Amino acid sequence: MDITSWIDSVKFDGKGLVPAVVQDADDGALLMVAYMNKEALTETLQTKRGVFFSRSRNKLWRKGEESGNVQELKSMALDCDKDCVLIKVKQIGGAACHTGRRSCFFHHVQEDGALEIKGEQLFDPQKIYKK
Amino acid sequence: MDITSWIDSVKFDGKGLVPAVVQDADDGALLMVAYMNKEALTETLQTKRGVFFSRSRNKLWRKGEESGNVQELKSMALDCDKDCVLIKVKQIGGAACHTGRRSCFFHHVQEDGALEIKGEQLFDPQKIYKK
Repeated sequence: MDITSWIDSVKFDGKGLVPAVVQDADDGALLMVAYMNKEALTETLQTKRGVFFSRSRNKLWRKGEESGNVQELKSMALDCDKDCVLIKVKQIGGAACHTGRRSCFFHHVQEDGALEIKGEQLFDPQKIYKK
Repeated sequence: MDITSWIDSVKFDGKGLVPAVVQDADDGALLMVAYMNKEALTETLQTKRGVFFSRSRNKLWRKGEESGNVQELKSMALDCDKDCVLIKVKQIGGAACHTGRRSCFFHHVQEDGALEIKGEQLFDPQKIYKK
C-alpha cells in the first residue's frame, strides 16, 4: 500500500478542495485553516511539509517557500465524513499567519460586538515578503 | 454597538457560508469543523451555544438539539481574512461527533497509507439519535 493510498477516499468539493485545519503539534493551538487539493495532500505527505492550494492565486502553495517559515508535518487525520483534513505541525519561525502572528485567528470577538486584535507580531511582513 | 455587529465584516462564500472550527476550550482539542451562515453566527452569539448550517439538510443545525450534547460557547475569533471562524466550547456529554467519539477527526493517517480509527465511543449513536 502506498503512503498516499488513503487520499482516494477523501471527499473533495466541487472545486477539488478540502479544508485543512493546521494545529500546533505541541500545544494544540489553531494556527490556520487553508485548502488542499489532491496534489497538495500528496505533496504534504511526501515532503512532510504543509502544502496547500491557494484559491486566490489558483496554484499550489508551499507554505514558507518565500518566508522560510515552513510547517513540519507531525501527523495527519481525516474527519468522520472524510471531507476535512487536520494536520499537526511544528511551525518553523513560530508564526503561521502572513501578518507575522502565530495564529491567523487573532480577531477576538468581544462582549460588546467589537473585534479585538490579540497576538504579538513575531515578524514584520514587509521584511519577510518581497514584492 | 450590538453584540453581533462584527458579523457584517465576515466574508461569506458564494453560498453564504464560512467554515467554523470547533475547539475544546479547556485543552484545545479539535472537535469538529462545520459551516455557519449569518443566521447561525448570530444565534451562536445570542444563545451562547454552537449553531451551524447543515449543508446536507440545508437548514440551521442547533448542535445537540436531538442528542442533548450541546456546545456551550466560551469564546469566538475570526481569522486574518475574516472568512473562517473559531469557536471554543465546552462540549456537553464529551462527544462532538455523531459517531459518539469526542472528535470527528478519528481517521488517523498511518505511515503505510492506511487510516486507523482511534477514539473511544462515548455514546452509542443508535441509542442517541432516533429515526
